[in-house]
Amino acid sequence: MGDSVPKFTDERRSEIRRTLLDVGAEQFADRGLEETAIADLTGEAGIATGTFYSFFDSKEELLAAILRREAEHVYADLRVVLKENEDDPETALRQFVRVAGDALVTTPLFRKTISREDRARLVEELPDTDILESHREKRDILVPYIEQWQQAGRITDGDVDTIASGILYIATLALRRDEIGDARYPTVRDCLIDWMVAGLCT
Amino acid sequence: MGDSVPKFTDERRSEIRRTLLDVGAEQFADRGLEETAIADLTGEAGIATGTFYSFFDSKEELLAAILRREAEHVYADLRVVLKENEDDPETALRQFVRVAGDALVTTPLFRKTISREDRARLVEELPDTDILESHREKRDILVPYIEQWQQAGRITDGDVDTIASGILYIATLALRRDEIGDARYPTVRDCLIDWMVAGLCT
Repeated sequence: MGDSVPKFTDERRSEIRRTLLDVGAEQFADRGLEETAIADLTGEAGIATGTFYSFFDSKEELLAAILRREAEHVYADLRVVLKENEDDPETALRQFVRVAGDALVTTPLFRKTISREDRARLVEELPDTDILESHREKRDILVPYIEQWQQAGRITDGDVDTIASGILYIATLALRRDEIGDARYPTVRDCLIDWMVAGLCT
Repeated sequence: MGDSVPKFTDERRSEIRRTLLDVGAEQFADRGLEETAIADLTGEAGIATGTFYSFFDSKEELLAAILRREAEHVYADLRVVLKENEDDPETALRQFVRVAGDALVTTPLFRKTISREDRARLVEELPDTDILESHREKRDILVPYIEQWQQAGRITDGDVDTIASGILYIATLALRRDEIGDARYPTVRDCLIDWMVAGLCT
């Protein structure tokens, strides 16, 4: 016992890590960071409580890893949407905004765990984390396509970063869903997408 | 002394009230609700501390009155902008978004006092207050013009409330200014306004 850590095969380590990510995602979404004990997580992963720390330094580190994984899934979806529709900017842009926006609505952790308090705590405990800076990542995914479409004369000229910020702003309408109302959200989103296409696509 | 309240003329009451609103706006913007004492406010208004309560029930009530006054100024500006340009929907809409958006940037209380904490406190202490629900008020200002312009064929058809929500979403880009950057904010705002006009104006 004491500080000794069981030796796991690489395969078993990777399996435990994945289980901690899955269980953590579920529990944090249900009860938030504060109310989830490390013992709750390790129990389901079939490891001793102390063994948790050979995988993550803290609950906050686990939450950061969960959010990074969720964000990477969204980025992967966004890359696919743009790649698959690179010859059709209008469809690519419509899909991009829908996928980015709907991720904010449907991803349980974005919706529930990342309460204001947990977000503040995460930033405080992990000052170097970049997982909340998804704006920059999405911008980097988008910009090469904007440049390519501008060069091909398929979308209007204009500062690429400004256009990317405009698209990303529309893609985060979901953050204002409480104010707009759940029922009206999809129609307002589609209205804004129509305006974006009218303004951008030639 | 005791609970007795000095008798003021109506004119003097109205002057004191205005001073409390002005001084309160300044102090709350500088230090927030918590750090401002009632004595700080009454000192500048030239009244005894206890007399404050013959004007407002609490600091929160004063803050609510200040915010209501600031909001009414913005609504008045928005009404003027629409009225003055009712024959030119494009100009009217461009100005509407600029005025509504810039109010969020330049009004000291919106920028500073209304920290997350003060906002939560205000809602808690004054559950019936509607001063934070500016969305509905701005919508009511906008909707008759949208209807009028649709009837005249000057802007596209479509659900009036959806269009109003889209316009108001663009008008609140300023709330995301930290993320976008102060320098880029005006160009992103103008880009979104261009898209709105391209999508709406016929």
